[in-house]
Amino acid sequence: MAMKTLSAKNAAALDKDLMSIGAFSIDQLMELAGLSVSQAVYRIHPPSRGRRILVACGPGNNGGDGLVAARHLWHYGYKPMIYYPKQAKNDLYQRLSTQLKNLNIPFTDDFPTALEETDHVIDAIFGFSFSGEVREPFPAVIRALEETRIPVTSVDAPSSWNIEEGPPKEGPGAKFNPEVLVSLTAPKPLVKYFKGRHFIGGRFVSPDIRKKYDLWLPEYEGIDQVVEVGSNGQKL
Amino acid sequence: MAMKTLSAKNAAALDKDLMSIGAFSIDQLMELAGLSVSQAVYRIHPPSRGRRILVACGPGNNGGDGLVAARHLWHYGYKPMIYYPKQAKNDLYQRLSTQLKNLNIPFTDDFPTALEETDHVIDAIFGFSFSGEVREPFPAVIRALEETRIPVTSVDAPSSWNIEEGPPKEGPGAKFNPEVLVSLTAPKPLVKYFKGRHFIGGRFVSPDIRKKYDLWLPEYEGIDQVVEVGSNGQKL
Repeated sequence: MAMKTLSAKNAAALDKDLMSIGAFSIDQLMELAGLSVSQAVYRIHPPSRGRRILVACGPGNNGGDGLVAARHLWHYGYKPMIYYPKQAKNDLYQRLSTQLKNLNIPFTDDFPTALEETDHVIDAIFGFSFSGEVREPFPAVIRALEETRIPVTSVDAPSSWNIEEGPPKEGPGAKFNPEVLVSLTAPKPLVKYFKGRHFIGGRFVSPDIRKKYDLWLPEYEGIDQVVEVGSNGQKL
Repeated sequence: MAMKTLSAKNAAALDKDLMSIGAFSIDQLMELAGLSVSQAVYRIHPPSRGRRILVACGPGNNGGDGLVAARHLWHYGYKPMIYYPKQAKNDLYQRLSTQLKNLNIPFTDDFPTALEETDHVIDAIFGFSFSGEVREPFPAVIRALEETRIPVTSVDAPSSWNIEEGPPKEGPGAKFNPEVLVSLTAPKPLVKYFKGRHFIGGRFVSPDIRKKYDLWLPEYEGIDQVVEVGSNGQKL
């Protein structure tokens, strides 16, 4: 049985609905999304396996989720480092960055060196709204993620993958296969090309939105903000 | 050894600092505060002990924390009911209320009946900015909380208590002693009059703010957003 998934178009519509009908602010949704990512990383890679986490952030909401995750990971006792080469100018992203600077979390421009000195990478470069070509300076970053033996957790989508079609046929990302994927709100069609450990996060969907998008959602346990699922969608 | 506490005046100044120097939005802080409360309730009163939770919300930020907690508790499988007689008009509180209505969480005007039909109460009426007299319609609510045998979890302060001096000498609240207190960010001076189980929540304080206010903060475990402490402040 294949997992029910949410198309890129519907993911965008659902996001809009969360903020209009759902009455959520972007601050709230990003806080809960980043919290989900931080909990998945803690589960996969507890601090005893190494505390250094490199968080690669893209220019949009996916990058914002990464910034929030980094803050929570710091509070859990990790030592995050941020690679955020295309910093969005808007108020929210600037505030999320300031929150990290207030924790003395370092920002780096040198991805290759940072990658050599980390225990885990969070790929928060591109999310469900990505399509087309990977723009500078990210092609080299995607190539490095493709080649590294350091485990990678991707947020919502392995960056460079097409949301519907999965990995690109050639170029950066064609051989990218992260160890972990955290699908936010619901899995996207690309999950059928993904071979690693898969978590669902974003525990804020109302019954109406679930019904409107005919979402498949697993049952979360206790107070968890993430749930791990198998390739056919059953809870692990 | 007495617990180090944060005066009402400093709690207000710290809150301001979180939003200015700290660059947090009120949405973010309230989300994390309410999440902390929901986790404490889950720990104290797991769903197996009864799923009905009555959340009494006051007109200010303490009430907002209660609204957020109610949403998370619904997602954990509880059946919250909201008593929110003085609904603030501002956008944030209205959105938090809409988020609950979208989950079909009922709002009630009849506190005494709701109290008869619940398994646990969250007192999110007044927080660290409370002083002076309890205004209508809350005196009867405080009296009911004083007399009920249903366990009560107070958010930041048992409502009606003076933040520095503890329970009022007479009138509503003079004999109020909730079973649980969740101190947000740091304990206030009133904790020395409190006899129940005490949690600290709000895992977002930076080292600079901690130093500026000479805060005593316990070590949180793992990904927890709350930590239970004893009367002298040691972690339990």
